[in-house]
Amino acid sequence: MMKKVVLGFSGGLDTSYCVKYLTQEKGYEVHSVIVNTGGFSEEELQEIEKRAYNLGVKSHKTVNAIRSYYDGVIKYLIFGNVLKNNTYPLSVSAERMSQALAIAEYVKEVGADAVAHGSTGAGNDQVRFDMVFHIMIPGVEIITPIRDMRLSREEEISYLKSKGVDMNFEKAMYSINKGMWGTSVGGKETLTSNGMLPEAAWPTQLTKQGEEQVKLTFEKGELKAVNDQQFGHPSEAIQYLQTLAGPFAIGRDIHVGDTIIGIKGRVGFEAAAPMVIIKAHHALEKHVLTKWQLSWKDQLAQFYGNYMHEGQIMDPVMRDIEAFLQNTQENVTGEVFVTLMPYRFQVTGINSPYDLMSSKFGKYGEMNSGWSGEDVRGFSKIFGNQTMIWHQVKNSI
Amino acid sequence: MMKKVVLGFSGGLDTSYCVKYLTQEKGYEVHSVIVNTGGFSEEELQEIEKRAYNLGVKSHKTVNAIRSYYDGVIKYLIFGNVLKNNTYPLSVSAERMSQALAIAEYVKEVGADAVAHGSTGAGNDQVRFDMVFHIMIPGVEIITPIRDMRLSREEEISYLKSKGVDMNFEKAMYSINKGMWGTSVGGKETLTSNGMLPEAAWPTQLTKQGEEQVKLTFEKGELKAVNDQQFGHPSEAIQYLQTLAGPFAIGRDIHVGDTIIGIKGRVGFEAAAPMVIIKAHHALEKHVLTKWQLSWKDQLAQFYGNYMHEGQIMDPVMRDIEAFLQNTQENVTGEVFVTLMPYRFQVTGINSPYDLMSSKFGKYGEMNSGWSGEDVRGFSKIFGNQTMIWHQVKNSI
Amino acid sequence: MMKKVVLGFSGGLDTSYCVKYLTQEKGYEVHSVIVNTGGFSEEELQEIEKRAYNLGVKSHKTVNAIRSYYDGVIKYLIFGNVLKNNTYPLSVSAERMSQALAIAEYVKEVGADAVAHGSTGAGNDQVRFDMVFHIMIPGVEIITPIRDMRLSREEEISYLKSKGVDMNFEKAMYSINKGMWGTSVGGKETLTSNGMLPEAAWPTQLTKQGEEQVKLTFEKGELKAVNDQQFGHPSEAIQYLQTLAGPFAIGRDIHVGDTIIGIKGRVGFEAAAPMVIIKAHHALEKHVLTKWQLSWKDQLAQFYGNYMHEGQIMDPVMRDIEAFLQNTQENVTGEVFVTLMPYRFQVTGINSPYDLMSSKFGKYGEMNSGWSGEDVRGFSKIFGNQTMIWHQVKNSI
Amino acid sequence: MMKKVVLGFSGGLDTSYCVKYLTQEKGYEVHSVIVNTGGFSEEELQEIEKRAYNLGVKSHKTVNAIRSYYDGVIKYLIFGNVLKNNTYPLSVSAERMSQALAIAEYVKEVGADAVAHGSTGAGNDQVRFDMVFHIMIPGVEIITPIRDMRLSREEEISYLKSKGVDMNFEKAMYSINKGMWGTSVGGKETLTSNGMLPEAAWPTQLTKQGEEQVKLTFEKGELKAVNDQQFGHPSEAIQYLQTLAGPFAIGRDIHVGDTIIGIKGRVGFEAAAPMVIIKAHHALEKHVLTKWQLSWKDQLAQFYGNYMHEGQIMDPVMRDIEAFLQNTQENVTGEVFVTLMPYRFQVTGINSPYDLMSSKFGKYGEMNSGWSGEDVRGFSKIFGNQTMIWHQVKNSI
Repeated sequence: MMKKVVLGFSGGLDTSYCVKYLTQEKGYEVHSVIVNTGGFSEEELQEIEKRAYNLGVKSHKTVNAIRSYYDGVIKYLIFGNVLKNNTYPLSVSAERMSQALAIAEYVKEVGADAVAHGSTGAGNDQVRFDMVFHIMIPGVEIITPIRDMRLSREEEISYLKSKGVDMNFEKAMYSINKGMWGTSVGGKETLTSNGMLPEAAWPTQLTKQGEEQVKLTFEKGELKAVNDQQFGHPSEAIQYLQTLAGPFAIGRDIHVGDTIIGIKGRVGFEAAAPMVIIKAHHALEKHVLTKWQLSWKDQLAQFYGNYMHEGQIMDPVMRDIEAFLQNTQENVTGEVFVTLMPYRFQVTGINSPYDLMSSKFGKYGEMNSGWSGEDVRGFSKIFGNQTMIWHQVKNSI
Repeated sequence: MMKKVVLGFSGGLDTSYCVKYLTQEKGYEVHSVIVNTGGFSEEELQEIEKRAYNLGVKSHKTVNAIRSYYDGVIKYLIFGNVLKNNTYPLSVSAERMSQALAIAEYVKEVGADAVAHGSTGAGNDQVRFDMVFHIMIPGVEIITPIRDMRLSREEEISYLKSKGVDMNFEKAMYSINKGMWGTSVGGKETLTSNGMLPEAAWPTQLTKQGEEQVKLTFEKGELKAVNDQQFGHPSEAIQYLQTLAGPFAIGRDIHVGDTIIGIKGRVGFEAAAPMVIIKAHHALEKHVLTKWQLSWKDQLAQFYGNYMHEGQIMDPVMRDIEAFLQNTQENVTGEVFVTLMPYRFQVTGINSPYDLMSSKFGKYGEMNSGWSGEDVRGFSKIFGNQTMIWHQVKNSI
Repeated sequence: MMKKVVLGFSGGLDTSYCVKYLTQEKGYEVHSVIVNTGGFSEEELQEIEKRAYNLGVKSHKTVNAIRSYYDGVIKYLIFGNVLKNNTYPLSVSAERMSQALAIAEYVKEVGADAVAHGSTGAGNDQVRFDMVFHIMIPGVEIITPIRDMRLSREEEISYLKSKGVDMNFEKAMYSINKGMWGTSVGGKETLTSNGMLPEAAWPTQLTKQGEEQVKLTFEKGELKAVNDQQFGHPSEAIQYLQTLAGPFAIGRDIHVGDTIIGIKGRVGFEAAAPMVIIKAHHALEKHVLTKWQLSWKDQLAQFYGNYMHEGQIMDPVMRDIEAFLQNTQENVTGEVFVTLMPYRFQVTGINSPYDLMSSKFGKYGEMNSGWSGEDVRGFSKIFGNQTMIWHQVKNSI
Repeated sequence: MMKKVVLGFSGGLDTSYCVKYLTQEKGYEVHSVIVNTGGFSEEELQEIEKRAYNLGVKSHKTVNAIRSYYDGVIKYLIFGNVLKNNTYPLSVSAERMSQALAIAEYVKEVGADAVAHGSTGAGNDQVRFDMVFHIMIPGVEIITPIRDMRLSREEEISYLKSKGVDMNFEKAMYSINKGMWGTSVGGKETLTSNGMLPEAAWPTQLTKQGEEQVKLTFEKGELKAVNDQQFGHPSEAIQYLQTLAGPFAIGRDIHVGDTIIGIKGRVGFEAAAPMVIIKAHHALEKHVLTKWQLSWKDQLAQFYGNYMHEGQIMDPVMRDIEAFLQNTQENVTGEVFVTLMPYRFQVTGINSPYDLMSSKFGKYGEMNSGWSGEDVRGFSKIFGNQTMIWHQVKNSI
């Protein structure tokens, strides 16, 4: 009986190579799978399926992981206002986790002997896929032809041509990874430390002008409505907001960060909905959470984001942090008002029953019946007491 | 002999009241002092001095604290990329610390029996002044007439008029606190949780259009040159950059945060140079620091900023954190390229001899001679080993 | 109608004074309450009740808070292995929170106009009681006669004698606070920075010799059985373990720490069961939790303990941390073996189905089929990659 | 010309094998080196040197790293009171870093083409050596015969016998690693999760009875004198204290922790001087540091210890943390009093000019002229203000 391999398949050069190589050179029965986390249209998915069969897979599966991606990953990135190095919403890193988990699930379903991915030996994704597979389907062989044979683009094309494969072999000027939580853009500018991507390189072009008001409604930290339009699942609200904010070319930036393999990597990204949501959510939190809730959320979320980025989503500490984050969202309910403008946006205010800036309990800068200046005088004395003693002791020596 | 009091004097209604009250009702010899941390012009300072003498102070002193403010506070806020709640550069909080310390110093110089400030009982500043005075000049009486007598604006005006004082008693629509590290703007919109300040309320209006390239040169984390123009002291570079970036109306935002006294306070601010410097400095750091340097800097700087905000600058833990931050800046040397545009800016890249994204040691996304795909395969296995075991143990029960 | 006050009553000098003072000088109807968190026997509670009525209270209530103290506080101190400054199990601090909450509850039940406690102005407890009352029963007046009138011991005795009160007015050489989570001991040695409490000062004397083996059974982090004896509630298991470990004079130490009011305070304590439980629980966790679970637990628990100590139990961030801690306990199930000896104990091992030191997945120091030396070689290379690049870049300048 | 290899040589089976293998099978010129970090006597070092030459090395070098080990590593472990998982003083981990760095230095000195170590593929040390070599001498080949050929003990013995090597091939019942910062003990009990090492397995036996008072004198955090005896270097003070405390069999424990390769490892250790020093140093710090200094030290030191354990001593973040720790020690000067007893010790007090528990500024539990009960009342109100508002807002919904 032929050995079965499940192959993560995107329809690109690398994974097309893998199909041919695994079937023809290695004698595997290839079961390709694509996990859609919001980056593909129905047409694209059908096109990819057709290509898989043309290349010779035994079966092809499309997994719709949009909701599970939100439920398992994005939700917590929002709860934690996660921006890696205060910049990047983890657009690609987060998505890879969801995809790897869905592929591992499919390997178990198919009962495959091996799992294959098209990663090279030079990036983050190889580690993410490897790790999730080691952890979730230990013992299943991991095959990575491009990495193992250190294949160049030219070698892959030459091999595919020799097998009679006819596809568009032209390299795009910019490599783009589109997903629900943002789109990454790499190109010659991102290979050096200096230089911005040109206007034309951005997948979403500026097509709106002027200002547009948007109201986001959060319930326990989750986006439930946009401009009073309710959605069955927050993933739909995110995608709807993207249609409003994207045409303003909001959320473009360029990030340099630490890859899992220790080198620095630079990447452009556009993430209109993610940036608007995170900033709106954070603004609401600043009104309804206490000082130490805000502070500890920041610390835990920083680690959570970094560790997710490194592919460690399955460490149980991630569940513990999620329990913390979930608990903090109890009162994160209310409306946030945002103004969208070309290339930027402004959170202009919030409305929440849990707002601690309640006029009932004293306005900042105005005197109040709950406490007196004398109380604050006492507070200041005691609050600085230890440091006062420290300086007195120091001076007395 | 008359008892001496040193009074922090700004020339406004509250501190004008204090002069009259302390001299005429309490029989003090009043020595007024104003600490300029970059918010006042020479003309304004002379005007304030004249007003002090007119009100009847025994002496008036202007302290130029611009350099000491930078050396003791702003430098570390830049090293730490400090933005309170990821938003606010601590424009006012930081300044108050410098002012309180300079006043305490002056109290010792004059040998005063008491120190007075014009704070009400409703804000952060009373705590900041009280605490620094308790700590640095313990035993010196702290007098706060406005807070102690819970005086209203009308009561103060009425008293001053009765003493023949002639000044502009009209209340400004927006209260503004201008300083080297940003200008705060409060008004009716900031007293509620929703609403943006109107365009006209911003002290610095948009007067530039188009794009402007700026190059910032950092040495060991400090801004030494702007567009190759060298400055004798980083405080001058900051002020120069402000003249370039301010007219683009950059760095405007509205922040709600935790006051020291436990309520939420909302404030508008504009901080063109601070925002550009912090983001540029951070971009450079992302290229030259290791992953854990970036991570620990974030954690320590968050605490540092919050604790500074709460008036705790004199706790020795702040010196310890400064030692950490200073040490991290060893390699934070290089040029950062920024594009200024109306209402926004973009860091477009950096150039540094310490850049870890060096092409000599492997480019992200390209294969490399220093390590192989096989190494990464081993890495992934070991890196996920504990979590693999955890899941295996879990599944075996 | 007379105004009602609820008085936290311990039967000691201070609270006895309060009864007389509040009834006779202030005309209050006094409702005394004592909250037993495990420190009092039935006889003692009855004696206290009798004394309360003799002093003239309108009503006296005994609240049994043993279970709620465990459920609301001790449970999380165990989950977090909380030892303040790595020394002190928060014996008193934790108990005060439970007591203050129960008193606040009783104030609401009685519908009192005021609440009184016997704290002086020199310790931690005043802050703990004040804070919980401000938060849970805002608007209810807080009366603290001893603090407010700065009464000396002699003044209190003299007043009580003048009112015909007959009680033991002699001051104990050591002030002792006994509770389920440990007993504090203060005396002349703890008022200075040097000096150990004498043997005779310890409430629990050494009465066992030799070695005794004890087995503790934890389920999801909670102590469910001791030597296979099951208990209906963990609080009973704790009290039973105390009867086994106490006679070994285990868990004695002296701690100096930061009081809420900024000065350093030194206190002796004995806490046999708490120390054994915390160390046993931690040993089990080291076997069943991942590296980062252990690490983050430490950080959060340190803050949790310190903030609890400062009376901040009602900040919602404490609920968030509890959610984190609770989640980490999912696998903290198993047996821990402990040897008790005079003055000390040794955890000698654990047995758990969740033990990650499972022989199925490789023993430390032995080769293993799951990964190879080659894998580790690759791991080491990649794990040190960034630091290698950092040094190379540094050396190349 | 023959290729040169530097071999870390301990004289044991594994490294003896390496000498023969590298010379005879691989044709290397072997330069053996042993780095003494305090674990070897002069006699042992001479014996090891003799054995090296007998085995056929070209040269043998003994590096005395006692002072550099203290200056570069132990000093900071003391400053940070580092105990891994609150238990283990990192006896072996710390030492390996010093040894690896000294070997790398020697490789550069000799101009070797390769470096070899005798690690197997199953432990922590392979990663520590690999990493330091990758980082400090990149490009130099790392040879690990035992790991690479997965050699068993029997295979090594058989090979050595075939080469005419005559040495003691018997395996010790307990493997012992002795060093200045503690001695590790592994044996059959530590291979399972339950079981204490038998009395006879401990290298240092109990030979003292009764109590012995010891006075430790610290200057800026460093141990400078023991019982008033001054030492030229703290490493000597440590070794002297070991002669006093060791015979009490103090500092024995068994630890289970996370290895770098992800499995749990259990090890016994005895560390009399390290445990006494850390606890004494911490006691002194509790008297002279502020609350937040103590808190941040704990957090940074936990990371520092864990990262050191994982071989990451060369990451520049370690230098940053050392700068922090060094700065905190400014006032850590004074005497600490300790009582040594069989199997245990008690810190009984301290004496320091920097003691913040100074009677000049108020004793805990006694009223004080610096602040009043009224001040504390005000403090409590403001300190709990935000949480009060939070609960009020919550209740009002």
